[in-house]
Amino acid sequence: MALTTTTLLEALQQRYATKAFDATRRIDPETWAALEKSLVLSPSSYGLQPWKFLVITKAELRAELRQHSWNQSQITDASHLVVFLAKRRIEEADVEKLISATSTLRGIAIESLGFYGEMIRKDLINGPRSQHIGQWSSNQVYIALGTFLTSAALLGVDTTPIEGFSPAEYDRVLGLENSAYRSCVVAVAGYHSAEDKYAGLAKVRYPDSELIEHIS
Amino acid sequence: MALTTTTLLEALQQRYATKAFDATRRIDPETWAALEKSLVLSPSSYGLQPWKFLVITKAELRAELRQHSWNQSQITDASHLVVFLAKRRIEEADVEKLISATSTLRGIAIESLGFYGEMIRKDLINGPRSQHIGQWSSNQVYIALGTFLTSAALLGVDTTPIEGFSPAEYDRVLGLENSAYRSCVVAVAGYHSAEDKYAGLAKVRYPDSELIEHIS
Repeated sequence: MALTTTTLLEALQQRYATKAFDATRRIDPETWAALEKSLVLSPSSYGLQPWKFLVITKAELRAELRQHSWNQSQITDASHLVVFLAKRRIEEADVEKLISATSTLRGIAIESLGFYGEMIRKDLINGPRSQHIGQWSSNQVYIALGTFLTSAALLGVDTTPIEGFSPAEYDRVLGLENSAYRSCVVAVAGYHSAEDKYAGLAKVRYPDSELIEHIS
Repeated sequence: MALTTTTLLEALQQRYATKAFDATRRIDPETWAALEKSLVLSPSSYGLQPWKFLVITKAELRAELRQHSWNQSQITDASHLVVFLAKRRIEEADVEKLISATSTLRGIAIESLGFYGEMIRKDLINGPRSQHIGQWSSNQVYIALGTFLTSAALLGVDTTPIEGFSPAEYDRVLGLENSAYRSCVVAVAGYHSAEDKYAGLAKVRYPDSELIEHIS
């Protein structure tokens, strides 16, 4: 069932950050459901899933968010907008929740998962990484972003990842200020407009030999 | 040429962080070349590619790195080890390099790309994001990690993303201490051992309804 390398590389080669979306085209429900599932199935460190995904199709809300996104047209014109949220803190309750879910889903006694919880606590709650937990959770969210963009490309859906927005304003507009989550990064998905002059441009990449070094 | 949602989701569902690799199985050159290409084609903010990928197959070096990776067996047993490096700083030279490559590859005069360079400078060199450039470049690297893990899953290759290593020791062993790059995250790829008891375990995910919120 594995894909051919040709099919994979064609999709990755065609993917580009869409500048102009066709505002009349919507992603069909089955395809969108698969893209949501790609977010849920995305890997994260320890499987902690320190994230949440807001899927926004409400036009008025998107118009408001556009004002806090350098007025980029993709925010309102794409079929779907996803705000990727990162968990602000990792606490004992997060560890217990994961252990409990693991126990239930895998039919393993909670007691025999003790080492696993301990490993997470020693790293993320009491260890050196606890000092940079914001960065750590952002990193995990960006894995999900990479998974989403790649999955979309394979399904023939155009996307744009967007860092050009105000996380503080998004948090305010989305009512996240006092929540456990914060706005981390944004992506839109849909189909590019026939007028998008970026669609046909050559991809700008440095030579493989500059980006990849082999030590063999 | 787009994939079916079923093929995509089967691959994402089967992907898991492999604990025990078959040390005798190697990824064939064509498949590996495609995975390297998935790294090169990965998206990054502004297309800046603030990264480099070290592909390590040298056994002695991997044995040494394993000592700085919580002694995890995957470091030595997987077919390929990739150390994802992030650029330490973003400077004027990086902007000029990108503008120059864009001009050459797209056949556009450098002068007409001035606005683009200005946008990057205002954001990453002189703007608020310049204060967190380490986090910013790590984020980009994690997009490449997500792209790589997803691409491998689609090609039927097993992987493990690894944060459990000492970046400082890696930098020392790999001679990166005085270079423009730093060790950011690690991934290994290959094929799981028949003894890997994690291969058949249920994936632990919180319910879709907890992770995805629709605002429509």
